[in-house]
Amino acid sequence: MDKTLIFGHKSPDTDTICSALAYADLKKKADVNAEPARLGEVNNETQFALNYFGVEAPQLIEKVGSDVTDVILVDHNEFQQSVDNISEVKISEVIDHHRVSNFETKEPLYFRAEPFGCTATILNKMYKEYGVAVTKDIAGLLLSAIISDSLLLKSPTCTKHDVEAAYELADIAGVNMETYGLEMLKAGADISDKSANDMITMDAKEFSMGDAKVEIAQVNAVDISEIYKLQADLETEINKTIEEKGLDLFLFVATDILNNDSEVFAAGESKGIVEKAFDEKLDDNNRALLKGVVSRKKQIVTVLTEAFSK
Amino acid sequence: MDKTLIFGHKSPDTDTICSALAYADLKKKADVNAEPARLGEVNNETQFALNYFGVEAPQLIEKVGSDVTDVILVDHNEFQQSVDNISEVKISEVIDHHRVSNFETKEPLYFRAEPFGCTATILNKMYKEYGVAVTKDIAGLLLSAIISDSLLLKSPTCTKHDVEAAYELADIAGVNMETYGLEMLKAGADISDKSANDMITMDAKEFSMGDAKVEIAQVNAVDISEIYKLQADLETEINKTIEEKGLDLFLFVATDILNNDSEVFAAGESKGIVEKAFDEKLDDNNRALLKGVVSRKKQIVTVLTEAFSK
Ligand SMILES: [Mn+2]
Ligand SMILES: [Mn+2]
Repeated sequence: MDKTLIFGHKSPDTDTICSALAYADLKKKADVNAEPARLGEVNNETQFALNYFGVEAPQLIEKVGSDVTDVILVDHNEFQQSVDNISEVKISEVIDHHRVSNFETKEPLYFRAEPFGCTATILNKMYKEYGVAVTKDIAGLLLSAIISDSLLLKSPTCTKHDVEAAYELADIAGVNMETYGLEMLKAGADISDKSANDMITMDAKEFSMGDAKVEIAQVNAVDISEIYKLQADLETEINKTIEEKGLDLFLFVATDILNNDSEVFAAGESKGIVEKAFDEKLDDNNRALLKGVVSRKKQIVTVLTEAFSK
Repeated sequence: MDKTLIFGHKSPDTDTICSALAYADLKKKADVNAEPARLGEVNNETQFALNYFGVEAPQLIEKVGSDVTDVILVDHNEFQQSVDNISEVKISEVIDHHRVSNFETKEPLYFRAEPFGCTATILNKMYKEYGVAVTKDIAGLLLSAIISDSLLLKSPTCTKHDVEAAYELADIAGVNMETYGLEMLKAGADISDKSANDMITMDAKEFSMGDAKVEIAQVNAVDISEIYKLQADLETEINKTIEEKGLDLFLFVATDILNNDSEVFAAGESKGIVEKAFDEKLDDNNRALLKGVVSRKKQIVTVLTEAFSK
């Protein structure tokens, strides 16, 4: 029997986990033998959403097994963010809202990227296209993904499609978006049980920019200074990662979810490019405050890619 | 004022030209300042369709001008098949039905690939999604594209979506699909005015396969032997192209549109791989008959890519 595995990116965030769960639900209702999976630990924010709506986390996988016929990627397309043996498996679909890069297939596929704030917003459209009603728990998951990716609709990546979907889904899920959303974001910003190594890996993504290999980790917080109390440890762990992966730049982004600013810490041979890209000097701790910057995708990756390609 | 340019691949075929024209029509009706364009000569088959439905060919461009805000690619995504300065322009959309390869953007975009036999079939869906009626001339163009890419619905790339769209569009266009289709294909298979150089360039596409650079040209004919009367000249021109572009393999595909077979001619250092890939010996003229093979995309590119990646 055919078996389709659906998963998002490494260091899974709420959109990646909830989109895998939701799309597997939709595919199953369309008679596809689909199973959701994840490539890493469930973070505190996502766990809060799963508990709230009573849904189990998908299975953890390290690689795609030989019993799998094809895979569907959600919330990512770049191979370095995907499962390790991605180039050996058949990708039948991609549902995503990121730039397209380092992705290729031998055969035609269904590739759907829309420039929205969240993969869940595309999936909400797809439920309508399939003529399948969104259940209460799935609505809760899709809503959580939108709140997470858009920082409660405040990120510059947030489009009118995301806003409309969020209000529609909050209604089905039976929650007050503001109240639920802030509670969920705060659960994610609770770093009291996190080590420095947790913080640099829990939401980290690797990018190719020009000839450079760049990793960008992002952590949400209610109080950024709590995070940088661990600066010495963070630095040690980051330098280890740079060494191991041969990175040119590691950018650590601490995002203030209440004021919507980020304080970044830069390390690696190419850290000077951060000053040029954002026109901000790094201080003696190699840190800089980027006012109004909350979106890795729209406000950091694009600016750095541009700087690296010059 | 913003200006969006819409174009298909180099060595344009009927799907590329008609999809550019149709999507520009749809975008204009959605109040986007869109213009169709083409990257090369209009072939006999496409010209027949344009004449039949009274539509002008789109403008010929060599590169994207500085007055253009963004571009939309139809019927291709691989950069080596696109306009020469593709990496310098903003790609806002892609509508395609091919594999995804050698494509990347800095920013999120609307990327829609569906594994159908033809781009025009996706566009026919999009007219419905936009709630715009397909006019008689546009229906004729979309139908012509489907007939061309599917060899009158006989290619293995043809899906039920293409068949449904074709019948629907033939109805709006007011033509008998079989009669019109055969007339159009025959117009395209008329090689009486073609030089050897015309034949190896009019429907040629370049591919990266493993580390190899491969070009595959396809010519339709009612009588394949007519084409190979020019074998000596074809060989001279093909060897010149191999030299100029540094190709590892040039595969020339002559397709019999009545019997649905292809006779291929292979040249270049890697020509031996053709024997392995198709399990057919090349004869003394470096030619082989591939029974039932008509689709470059589904029956040639996939098989060769597989062989090159071993
Ligand atoms: Mn996302
Ligand atoms: Mn096509």
